[in-house]
Amino acid sequence: MLPRLSLLLIGSELLDGRVEERNSQIMIARLVESGFMIEHTLTCDDQEGAIKECLGFLVPRSDAIIISGGLGPTTDDLTREAVAAYCGVTLYTDRHTSDRLKQWHSSRGRLMDDSNLKQALFPEGCTIIPNPTGTAAGFMVSLKQPNTGINCHVFAVPGVPSELEAMLQQSIVAKLKSLFERADITAPVTHTLRVFGLPEAVVGSRVAQTKPSQEINIAYCVRFPEVQVILRYAGQQPVLCAAVQCAREALGAEFIFSEDPDAGLDYVVHKLLLDKHLTIAVAESCTAGILGAMLTSHSGSSAYFLGGCLTYSNQSKQSCLKVSTASLEAHGAVSPVVAREMARGVRESFCSDLGVSITGIAGPEGGTSTKPAGTFFVGLDGIFGTQAYKFLFSSSRERVRTYAAWTALDLIRRTLLGFALPQTA
Amino acid sequence: MLPRLSLLLIGSELLDGRVEERNSQIMIARLVESGFMIEHTLTCDDQEGAIKECLGFLVPRSDAIIISGGLGPTTDDLTREAVAAYCGVTLYTDRHTSDRLKQWHSSRGRLMDDSNLKQALFPEGCTIIPNPTGTAAGFMVSLKQPNTGINCHVFAVPGVPSELEAMLQQSIVAKLKSLFERADITAPVTHTLRVFGLPEAVVGSRVAQTKPSQEINIAYCVRFPEVQVILRYAGQQPVLCAAVQCAREALGAEFIFSEDPDAGLDYVVHKLLLDKHLTIAVAESCTAGILGAMLTSHSGSSAYFLGGCLTYSNQSKQSCLKVSTASLEAHGAVSPVVAREMARGVRESFCSDLGVSITGIAGPEGGTSTKPAGTFFVGLDGIFGTQAYKFLFSSSRERVRTYAAWTALDLIRRTLLGFALPQTA
Repeated sequence: MLPRLSLLLIGSELLDGRVEERNSQIMIARLVESGFMIEHTLTCDDQEGAIKECLGFLVPRSDAIIISGGLGPTTDDLTREAVAAYCGVTLYTDRHTSDRLKQWHSSRGRLMDDSNLKQALFPEGCTIIPNPTGTAAGFMVSLKQPNTGINCHVFAVPGVPSELEAMLQQSIVAKLKSLFERADITAPVTHTLRVFGLPEAVVGSRVAQTKPSQEINIAYCVRFPEVQVILRYAGQQPVLCAAVQCAREALGAEFIFSEDPDAGLDYVVHKLLLDKHLTIAVAESCTAGILGAMLTSHSGSSAYFLGGCLTYSNQSKQSCLKVSTASLEAHGAVSPVVAREMARGVRESFCSDLGVSITGIAGPEGGTSTKPAGTFFVGLDGIFGTQAYKFLFSSSRERVRTYAAWTALDLIRRTLLGFALPQTA
Repeated sequence: MLPRLSLLLIGSELLDGRVEERNSQIMIARLVESGFMIEHTLTCDDQEGAIKECLGFLVPRSDAIIISGGLGPTTDDLTREAVAAYCGVTLYTDRHTSDRLKQWHSSRGRLMDDSNLKQALFPEGCTIIPNPTGTAAGFMVSLKQPNTGINCHVFAVPGVPSELEAMLQQSIVAKLKSLFERADITAPVTHTLRVFGLPEAVVGSRVAQTKPSQEINIAYCVRFPEVQVILRYAGQQPVLCAAVQCAREALGAEFIFSEDPDAGLDYVVHKLLLDKHLTIAVAESCTAGILGAMLTSHSGSSAYFLGGCLTYSNQSKQSCLKVSTASLEAHGAVSPVVAREMARGVRESFCSDLGVSITGIAGPEGGTSTKPAGTFFVGLDGIFGTQAYKFLFSSSRERVRTYAAWTALDLIRRTLLGFALPQTA
């Protein structure tokens, strides 16, 4: 039997529709890949009595419980009180943590409120779990399951997803593995293919056509605008590798931008530009900065990103990018001609190796019968010449803009890797 | 007291990472807007024993329970068996449903497998709930809470989100309202204050100082970089209004950018610029487009957003924005002088009413002892003159960039509303 873990998610905002509960997904993904089974996830309000009742249900059914939320400094944060009460112990102030809190605030020039000191309170006998990215440290207490006398280990971590994720990765998974040190906790082997440019249904049917063995578990995870194909196998690596190779061929290598769960499209393009010592400049109309922000999301981007122009108005397309009046009048701002002139103009203006442009109709207003909302063009300019590509992605304004920026990044990736490009417009 | 509803989500795929559990979000949104409170959400495996144990926990704590999942035709679908066993009744075949199933399959030219007939089985004494869009009908049984003898109504619906949503909308919400036909099922009154620029602990202690009545539930919800204060009261509006007014004064009106859950800071600034008929242009260095993207996230932004320059390199600051070599050499790119020149330069270049600039060190690399990573300046240029403001926000690269763009947007808001601004740098 694998150890049985349960998750307890605390917060009234999770139950009244204000916040979508996402921490259970984060924890399930991380814990399952590390070879643990999840028995239950349970959500409850920020109330000491309710939290204690939930522990009463979960403790007899779990070898370990991870509680997320309720460790903040405000009066509605009651996890530490509830766990201490359930265990029948008192809270004490950890001097090391209170010193660290004071230092954390003063080093950032921030006001430290007395209520912050609540975050230095811990149940007697617990192990403190450091929080590398925030102020709320977590803790772990071990207690006995009432009927069996078997240990149940209760972890409490903050509800902020990024902090929770860092603590899982840096200490909790290792701690769990050492608590349940047994030969049968081997993580299943997994492999992730990250796909952009194919709808989920097409991704699913292409992979299904490879008729993978029943023993290989395949999950599709849509994280707009990418689709992740996660292959998992509770056995030897070579069996999984064969299935991955079939899926790769069925999908088409050009659609797979990454096989690393930690390397998104922005990182892949960042690395490519660094490795090839190329510089880039962007001219954005409907995306108005999303592409520039993505190209600079990783440290070191100043080595290749020279800058860009957000040319929302026609006048700025002319003054900043030297787009011609004739082209604007004859073809309109959303056209392959203007996309090409924008890409060329920004490359010349910034003296970069590559110039990339986006011009389109994000919607919901502004579409026409020939250029409906969701129409956009991407222009590329470089030593290879100047091209423009046309796309139509009918969706919300936010999604159209995100999709357009991803499309431009993906065209850069394909160009730099020599992959097939769409037909030019 | 409002009726307390709990949700029980059934399926091993929800616990092993194959499928992201979304039904609880769908149900919470629908039920909260109809005036119900959610007590717990609980996820469990497709096992009869586990489902019964979960009912054992939820029934005493709930006036109604909605179970989703486990009504399919396969052997791992065990909800009907578990509910019948928990209630101590047997399953019977409903002829009407079995006829409908046969007809559904034959009208689609599909083979009907014997296992499909399982979907015509129901616990004795239940009310059948039609499924307008799929094959799996739902049902409802009423039983007594063990200690109190109060009724608990257990609904079972399929786990397919579209079917579940249709059944909620077409019958379950109405059924719940008629079961709890009482004058006090009115949605609680709520009010949200959306705060930027104060840490969560400070927000919490300022509100706590107003000593709001115990009957007013106050929740703090951090959606980086904003903090939402949500006040809720199960009674009359005027009582809530008084508490809101106290919280507003304690927080400081200038920190509250919105009191509308649907109007974020980007929308508030969008509306202000439209209403005041002002145009704007941006010069972004470390944020490289995040501010431009935020200023254009709502349809109609072309009325005020003329464009901007992403001036990542020093050279582009000079060529696009006419920042002087002397200023760059004497003060560096991250300085109040350069922030002012950038704001002025972009306003002149785009002939806009307002020019806004951001220059800073997003990190994690690039900081110095006098300008650590997280240091940034915002420049504002307009008919009021040219100012620069200094900030230090020590955090991850992603958060520093987001925080800097929000800070710039918030300074625009404060300027346009005549609120106090920070000291100039």
